[in-house]
Amino acid sequence: MTDFAARLTEIADKVTVALDQLIPAAAGPEADLMRAMRHAGLANGKRIRPFFLLEVGSMFGAPETPLLHAAAALECVHTYSLVHDDLPCMDDDDLRRGQPTVHVAFDEATAVLAGDALLTLAFGVLADENMEVGATVRLHLISKLAEAAGARGMVAGQMIDMLGREHVRDLNTITRMQRMKTGALISYAVEAGAIIGGASEAERHALAGFANDLGLAYQIADDLLDVTGDVAQLGKATGKDDEAGKSTFVTLLGVEGAQQRVRLLAAQAKEHMAIFRNRANILLQSVDYVLDREH
Amino acid sequence: MTDFAARLTEIADKVTVALDQLIPAAAGPEADLMRAMRHAGLANGKRIRPFFLLEVGSMFGAPETPLLHAAAALECVHTYSLVHDDLPCMDDDDLRRGQPTVHVAFDEATAVLAGDALLTLAFGVLADENMEVGATVRLHLISKLAEAAGARGMVAGQMIDMLGREHVRDLNTITRMQRMKTGALISYAVEAGAIIGGASEAERHALAGFANDLGLAYQIADDLLDVTGDVAQLGKATGKDDEAGKSTFVTLLGVEGAQQRVRLLAAQAKEHMAIFRNRANILLQSVDYVLDREH
Repeated sequence: MTDFAARLTEIADKVTVALDQLIPAAAGPEADLMRAMRHAGLANGKRIRPFFLLEVGSMFGAPETPLLHAAAALECVHTYSLVHDDLPCMDDDDLRRGQPTVHVAFDEATAVLAGDALLTLAFGVLADENMEVGATVRLHLISKLAEAAGARGMVAGQMIDMLGREHVRDLNTITRMQRMKTGALISYAVEAGAIIGGASEAERHALAGFANDLGLAYQIADDLLDVTGDVAQLGKATGKDDEAGKSTFVTLLGVEGAQQRVRLLAAQAKEHMAIFRNRANILLQSVDYVLDREH
Repeated sequence: MTDFAARLTEIADKVTVALDQLIPAAAGPEADLMRAMRHAGLANGKRIRPFFLLEVGSMFGAPETPLLHAAAALECVHTYSLVHDDLPCMDDDDLRRGQPTVHVAFDEATAVLAGDALLTLAFGVLADENMEVGATVRLHLISKLAEAAGARGMVAGQMIDMLGREHVRDLNTITRMQRMKTGALISYAVEAGAIIGGASEAERHALAGFANDLGLAYQIADDLLDVTGDVAQLGKATGKDDEAGKSTFVTLLGVEGAQQRVRLLAAQAKEHMAIFRNRANILLQSVDYVLDREH
């Protein structure tokens, strides 16, 4: 097992424990709301965003408590976006993280509400004193999360994705869509680690470049997996983009062209990290993981 | 026009202007997202929550900028909850604030996303330096909003409401549901005004009692309007509760019993405000408005 793989597993486990403590226990006539939040939030995700947040923060010697809370908050936002994106009126997916999606396991209303509650919880976690970090840092984290996740970030990316084939046909639009839909939260993960770690301006700049390139590489790899991947390993449906007649990086660049783009972006991502020398070893390994991932 | 009516109109106008500035302008392929946020957020609402927030804050001499920003954030949360509650999988309403609901004017996916973006925006507004209030106050406002709007507050109330007739049959459950579904944000409005205004412990306690009684009175009045109200004046459908076979304060207490309960709660609400003497005059008038409202 590489250092990266070990660290990814370690962080995933810790974030799941943190989420288990932060998501309210099921109680009262509204118990299905918490059950649905837990169904989605405690499922076996890769926790790649928490990984970036904790790994970047640790590189600057930040304490684990604020990093873990911020990572849990970020994962709440990521999870809520999956729950809502899977709804019948959106991507209409039945399978997620190897289990039935929330609207299948419960119902649509519960899925909408569980998503809403997870998003709300994220901001509550970041504002809480249990973050064990100063007020200015907490506010900075909240501002940046609202920006990354909101109408000029993730939600706008999903909105463009919903427009489908008529509107999303060229590489520029797809790139912008993906930078918002997936890239914004990956960049936030790296940025939040840097904020909590007190990174310098130059360090933040390098990390932003790293996150930008890696986020895009990650998404193109995702499009490739939709074509070449295996349902059982992915834990979600494949071939969906093609079925919907959507333009993706793969339909526009071809499989080889897309693979080449991933390699190029990965190399660029690594170059950004040169200023950190061997402190960034595990982050550099994460780039190779994105290149080779099978799920 | 009473002082209250004048103040309610003044505040409603100011909050609408603030929301117009805070909700992003429609641009790019995702423009319908912002259009939908504006459709819902800038519609002609009563802005009763902003009224309480600004009026309580003003009573303590708080400056207008943070009060207006907090009120706009609160109205974003209230508006998002209406957009999601109106969805076909929830209450399935076509009419709201005298205009088509968001999923009717746009589509369901846009309604889900516009709601998500409004909720996210609320926290972004409260975290922003433009609030012109100290970091601790901003964090306090964010924490309390997440609590009031989340899985132990408003969303839980809506979840119980969705369970419908089998689960919500007695006065205790209905009261608890309403305290969460509607009461939590009304209490937050009053609390946020007190936080920004720097109210004392005793003052906050009195205000919390006021908000609690008034919020419940407001909801019972709402149930009464569902039975006795006029669609054109309300700007939303009536008779929905009866149609759905739901238990409400009116079905359990009868029209007269419900009216009596409203009067009792209103009187109690006023008693809580005795410590403020004539500084609370406009707030006291707001209680009479709740008693007599026709929409």
